[in-house]
Amino acid sequence: MRGGPRGGDAIDAAVDERDAVGFVAVPRGPDPTSRYLTGRDFDCDLVFVRVAGETHLRVPSTVEPPSLPVASVRVDDRPPGKAAAAVLAEHAASEGSVLAPRTIPHDAALHLESAGYDLASTTAVADARAVKDDAERDAIEAVQRAATRGVGRAAAILSAATVEEADDGDSGDSDDDADGESVLYWGDAPLSTERLRRQANATLAAEGVDAAGATAIRAGTRGDGGEPVELRPGEPIVVSVGPRGPAGYRGALARTFVVDPDGGWERRAHVACDAARKVSLVEADPGDDAGFLGSELRAETAAFGFSMADEVTRDVGGGIGLAAREDPPLDGDRELVAGNVLRVRSAVTHADHGRVELTDVLVVGEDGPRLLGDAPTGLDPSRW
Amino acid sequence: MRGGPRGGDAIDAAVDERDAVGFVAVPRGPDPTSRYLTGRDFDCDLVFVRVAGETHLRVPSTVEPPSLPVASVRVDDRPPGKAAAAVLAEHAASEGSVLAPRTIPHDAALHLESAGYDLASTTAVADARAVKDDAERDAIEAVQRAATRGVGRAAAILSAATVEEADDGDSGDSDDDADGESVLYWGDAPLSTERLRRQANATLAAEGVDAAGATAIRAGTRGDGGEPVELRPGEPIVVSVGPRGPAGYRGALARTFVVDPDGGWERRAHVACDAARKVSLVEADPGDDAGFLGSELRAETAAFGFSMADEVTRDVGGGIGLAAREDPPLDGDRELVAGNVLRVRSAVTHADHGRVELTDVLVVGEDGPRLLGDAPTGLDPSRW
Repeated sequence: MRGGPRGGDAIDAAVDERDAVGFVAVPRGPDPTSRYLTGRDFDCDLVFVRVAGETHLRVPSTVEPPSLPVASVRVDDRPPGKAAAAVLAEHAASEGSVLAPRTIPHDAALHLESAGYDLASTTAVADARAVKDDAERDAIEAVQRAATRGVGRAAAILSAATVEEADDGDSGDSDDDADGESVLYWGDAPLSTERLRRQANATLAAEGVDAAGATAIRAGTRGDGGEPVELRPGEPIVVSVGPRGPAGYRGALARTFVVDPDGGWERRAHVACDAARKVSLVEADPGDDAGFLGSELRAETAAFGFSMADEVTRDVGGGIGLAAREDPPLDGDRELVAGNVLRVRSAVTHADHGRVELTDVLVVGEDGPRLLGDAPTGLDPSRW
Repeated sequence: MRGGPRGGDAIDAAVDERDAVGFVAVPRGPDPTSRYLTGRDFDCDLVFVRVAGETHLRVPSTVEPPSLPVASVRVDDRPPGKAAAAVLAEHAASEGSVLAPRTIPHDAALHLESAGYDLASTTAVADARAVKDDAERDAIEAVQRAATRGVGRAAAILSAATVEEADDGDSGDSDDDADGESVLYWGDAPLSTERLRRQANATLAAEGVDAAGATAIRAGTRGDGGEPVELRPGEPIVVSVGPRGPAGYRGALARTFVVDPDGGWERRAHVACDAARKVSLVEADPGDDAGFLGSELRAETAAFGFSMADEVTRDVGGGIGLAAREDPPLDGDRELVAGNVLRVRSAVTHADHGRVELTDVLVVGEDGPRLLGDAPTGLDPSRW
């Protein structure tokens, strides 16, 4: 599906202010910059040129040029920098300063320079992307609702799971030092991280969003992205999703569940994560320092007796939108502004006990932060 | 899930041959180069340095550094080019030639140069990626099997659909000039492109693969990526999927169906596409010219009376692997080699009739091409 093209005004303002000839971006393949600037995905290299307040696109001859409401969409098989230089020369001047993201491909930068332009870097697009308009916020909220259903499906399955004696030597877990331990069953078969992942993803698909390769099930100290393992009672099970909606916007939601809890660690870790999560709901106001919010999230978690160095996650989040990670990071000295949408994560990891994590998405509004979605936070999957 | 890291030998050979200090890549976010070189996805900017036959990774402090079987994985918040230069200086020399893909971010190239290195471009990684090993071929074949089930689910729904009178003014299609025309029903509701897309995606998810935002349903002349429309009898319905498997490899499959066919155009277009498709199964041998295969696909389709300029697709395909589009393109003068895996597409589009498309994936073997998957090609969904 398409969205509207965005970023044109911000680019035009930067071009004006810097007295530049125009702006060039060369997003490659899955780079979401294509979607932001044009309103649709390209799975090829794209040449985007903004000049004289108009957008010109160049694509290789091996794709079918899409019909889009821009000044021109043409096939050009020259290297991207040469194709961009030709557009600039045709619609403006054949020399002068050209703005580009600092990460423009090196070959494109060299071709623009050898065509006679001076390159100057701009953060106009990244800055514009960090502040969401109403339609973008709505798109993220919709995908976050779908994310809630995906995690809810996993909670329902865990809630219905039964505890059975493990079938020795048939667990598929080569690191298994727990033969004879109990495992979770769902239906007539052991419940593995992979079965749970597929069920959550099928729910995401039925809700119209894409799992985006981001669904992860972590079981205790096992299953962090490796081979599937069977889930066990008593261990913390992290269900984490990061779907992409039809307009390209991402969601992020993680919850931790325990079936038949028997220990104290995960309960203490969960209290710490939940307390840290609440900090973000109080502190994420326009004008606040993004890095300070990140530090507060970590400090609040650590205050419950966890090590900042080894146990509290450093990945406390940052901007989310067309990319799972974008500006502003919750690190450094950026000021939050109304319209920022943030992924906020509190998590604790322990070598023997596993991991407890809570991840949410909130929007920074004029009147303070607002959580997108209303997923419960508890450890008990039957309370979802 | 993880795969093994790849490309190290090819990089080391290029470094040796060019008498270089080392190799640097800076894959950003969703760039599949990260997956290829490290065996896992990174959703952040990654600094990859290969020096003295070993791999060193640098990540920003806002992610949790993964545990990987490489020489070092460390946090470094300096700009990627500076972080890479520090690794090169520590493990080899503080000057000399450094190889990099020509699309390395411009700022990273400048930082490497100002640290004292000369940059030289290499295609070593793209060349290595174009030739799949057995595990990669197996991964693509597995995702292609799942793709076949996803398209098969759409065929089963179309086969079970009934033809009903359209409900005036409730079709959700603002361009609808066909009030009172018949539409397809499935269950108790009209069958829209979006309902069919979600069903196909739920099947992909249950098969353990990700729809990757690539599932598209095109109905006649409508629904090419825009708003959902209701499907009608008699129009060609293109079901196209491009899922990503757990190891990151992509599949590609498109089929065209007609419920209650009444015209001759789609039948003629389908005969042309099927004939062109068979060309690829005869001609894709090691040593053949990739661009010639692409031209033959187009020429064979046009031979059935379709216009090369306006009707026959230019997007006949090319290499597929971790990216939906990679080397070799079916365009230009590259020679096919055993181990190439190709997406091959034949398609015809007409302004009044719509589109007919057949897309498959084949592997170029020593003994010739082999189709991955065994999806039927017919227009009749009940014959799937």
